[in-house]
Amino acid sequence: MDRNIEILKRVEVFSKTLAQNGIDAAIIMQNSDVYYYSGTMPSGMLVISNDNTHFFAIRKGFDRAKEETPLKNLVAVKGISALANLFSDFGIRSNRIGIEMDVLPVDMYFRIKKTFNNAEIVDISHLIRSQRAIKSEYEISLMRESARILDCTMEDAKEIIKPELTEIYISATLEYRARKRGHQGRCRMRGFNGEMLMGHVHSGFRSAYPSGFLKPTTGYGIYPSFPDGASFYKIEKNTPIIVDFLGNYEGYHTDETRVFVVGKLDNEYKKAYDFCMEVMNYLEENAKEGVSTLSIYNHCIKMAKEAGYEENFMGARDNQVPFVGHGIGLEVDEYPFIAKGLDFELKEGMTFAFEPKVAFYGKGAVGVENTYVVRKNSVESLTRYPREIIEL
Amino acid sequence: MDRNIEILKRVEVFSKTLAQNGIDAAIIMQNSDVYYYSGTMPSGMLVISNDNTHFFAIRKGFDRAKEETPLKNLVAVKGISALANLFSDFGIRSNRIGIEMDVLPVDMYFRIKKTFNNAEIVDISHLIRSQRAIKSEYEISLMRESARILDCTMEDAKEIIKPELTEIYISATLEYRARKRGHQGRCRMRGFNGEMLMGHVHSGFRSAYPSGFLKPTTGYGIYPSFPDGASFYKIEKNTPIIVDFLGNYEGYHTDETRVFVVGKLDNEYKKAYDFCMEVMNYLEENAKEGVSTLSIYNHCIKMAKEAGYEENFMGARDNQVPFVGHGIGLEVDEYPFIAKGLDFELKEGMTFAFEPKVAFYGKGAVGVENTYVVRKNSVESLTRYPREIIEL
Repeated sequence: MDRNIEILKRVEVFSKTLAQNGIDAAIIMQNSDVYYYSGTMPSGMLVISNDNTHFFAIRKGFDRAKEETPLKNLVAVKGISALANLFSDFGIRSNRIGIEMDVLPVDMYFRIKKTFNNAEIVDISHLIRSQRAIKSEYEISLMRESARILDCTMEDAKEIIKPELTEIYISATLEYRARKRGHQGRCRMRGFNGEMLMGHVHSGFRSAYPSGFLKPTTGYGIYPSFPDGASFYKIEKNTPIIVDFLGNYEGYHTDETRVFVVGKLDNEYKKAYDFCMEVMNYLEENAKEGVSTLSIYNHCIKMAKEAGYEENFMGARDNQVPFVGHGIGLEVDEYPFIAKGLDFELKEGMTFAFEPKVAFYGKGAVGVENTYVVRKNSVESLTRYPREIIEL
Repeated sequence: MDRNIEILKRVEVFSKTLAQNGIDAAIIMQNSDVYYYSGTMPSGMLVISNDNTHFFAIRKGFDRAKEETPLKNLVAVKGISALANLFSDFGIRSNRIGIEMDVLPVDMYFRIKKTFNNAEIVDISHLIRSQRAIKSEYEISLMRESARILDCTMEDAKEIIKPELTEIYISATLEYRARKRGHQGRCRMRGFNGEMLMGHVHSGFRSAYPSGFLKPTTGYGIYPSFPDGASFYKIEKNTPIIVDFLGNYEGYHTDETRVFVVGKLDNEYKKAYDFCMEVMNYLEENAKEGVSTLSIYNHCIKMAKEAGYEENFMGARDNQVPFVGHGIGLEVDEYPFIAKGLDFELKEGMTFAFEPKVAFYGKGAVGVENTYVVRKNSVESLTRYPREIIEL
């Protein structure tokens, strides 16, 4: 489908969702959401009503937005207070207004409340995220390209990794090559305080080192100011080296992890890796449209317990995370989550990363990760680098 | 001063600020603020009372936090709801609680309100940002190192830039070298939707191309999904190439811009660059403790008008930004701003980037930028790369 037709379709679908939920209009402001519904990313406020009227109030980047978006009704404004008049100009009611409460800062909420002082303000994040979770074939084609380029990063790693190199040297080289292939250089997370590099390279105890970031294996990082990713430590022989990278093409992320080793891994790691592959195989044999993500998650946890990895699965000690997979697209933490206490029904076109990992505190970690698209009777892996441990 | 003593001092100073403002306690949650007051960055909530009691409720990264912070009273918790009991355990009143309303998402605000349903919730962002604006000599020493490394990036650019290269090739190479020198790889902006790469390389019309990001010269970027920085276009001869990069050392940013050219610039650009240097000189001759940032800003605007750059100063067309300088440190958009309608009094130890730039829509842009620290009778530039246009 033509990109522009698809964007107009997204707005139309969302407008119907608003109507079904008794919401007069949505004020959409966050970068990824604005981009999804407009195809451009100015500083501004995209307003969509429940009868498929929209206008786009733009503070900065007007000329560029005009060139990039198929939307009509672009208006140059100075700030939020301009919205009240624009609502009435476009005949949009404002009794019940939706905003993105999971990402909008509190002070913005109060400014909107002041502008629409009689309105009820409700949260539309769940509605937006639910729509964005199901990708069109056009979006999947972008993610396929993102994954293809990401596979090249794994091939780069195979070529680059040598004894005595520092983690940061390897990571910087992979980032460099990815950038030259068109990686946009910044990965987007939706969650508060969520921060991401282009990828992680870490080895030995650092792979199982604690960090505040919500990732199973985070790495030591360079400074306490960014407890994430590669460090200035050298990689060690006979110790797993984790390369966990994010692809990016036209904003669409994909996520892939492989384990490399200079020399040989001992049996403890091999066994743990085999277990991760078993979990991956379980997913690939069972996930398809209609399956509950919570049932997948619970089964993975059961497998981990049975294999004796209860305290190692998805991170070691206080670094364990309560998920095995996460939706991915314009953001790295999209719906659906394959996580504790959250239940999504898999639907055709959903895309997610699945990343069984096992970590041993003070020692190291192994794991595997691919990015999938959900089909009627299966899941298809977009990332396709060979899955064995890569011995160098 | 020892890092740990300094962090405890920061907490003590902030505690007094809370007392002066009639606030019982602050719940600090945003990454940069948590790091500033603790020296570590777990996922959690740092609570500081108005009588210098504190506790640190940590959801993830406990062991690491314990190693990195001098703070006492670390408590492992599952979520915000644990705070109510902890307040009473530590004897902290909760009638008036401060949170970071400029960065905390709305849904977090409602969760805090639910936990403390009788409390008045107030905004402490301004108090935090005001304290963070004034850097200690220890922080300045980190920024000095950040600037020194950043100067190397300019030297890299001089070495790398050749005719026929793409912007992205140059940018990726500068990023690669900076990463190997210890750049943490991700630059932090506080403002909603604020996103930053490690730097910008752009040339010709792309330097004056509109973008939603709040920067005077943004670049075309690779995709509409990230309207910022280098593109796949080649640099052109006899056209200004802007290298605007961020240094980073232990989380502390510095900001520097230089103009490169393969060949010669024509007089229009040279004149504009001379003007930017005049504005820079004006700053260096006048800025010092006690000076009003608004008076600096207004004078710069006056200079631009007199020189005929009213529509070109700090961006072209709808890409103009209402500032000439911005505080910088753990974040790229700190206090003080040298901006329209905002008045800060310069104080010793404040650090800011100052970046007079002139852009011609459809053609190109020039400018210069350095990072300064405010002293009693002057400002000192931390970035020290030669300031002339660099002809290659």
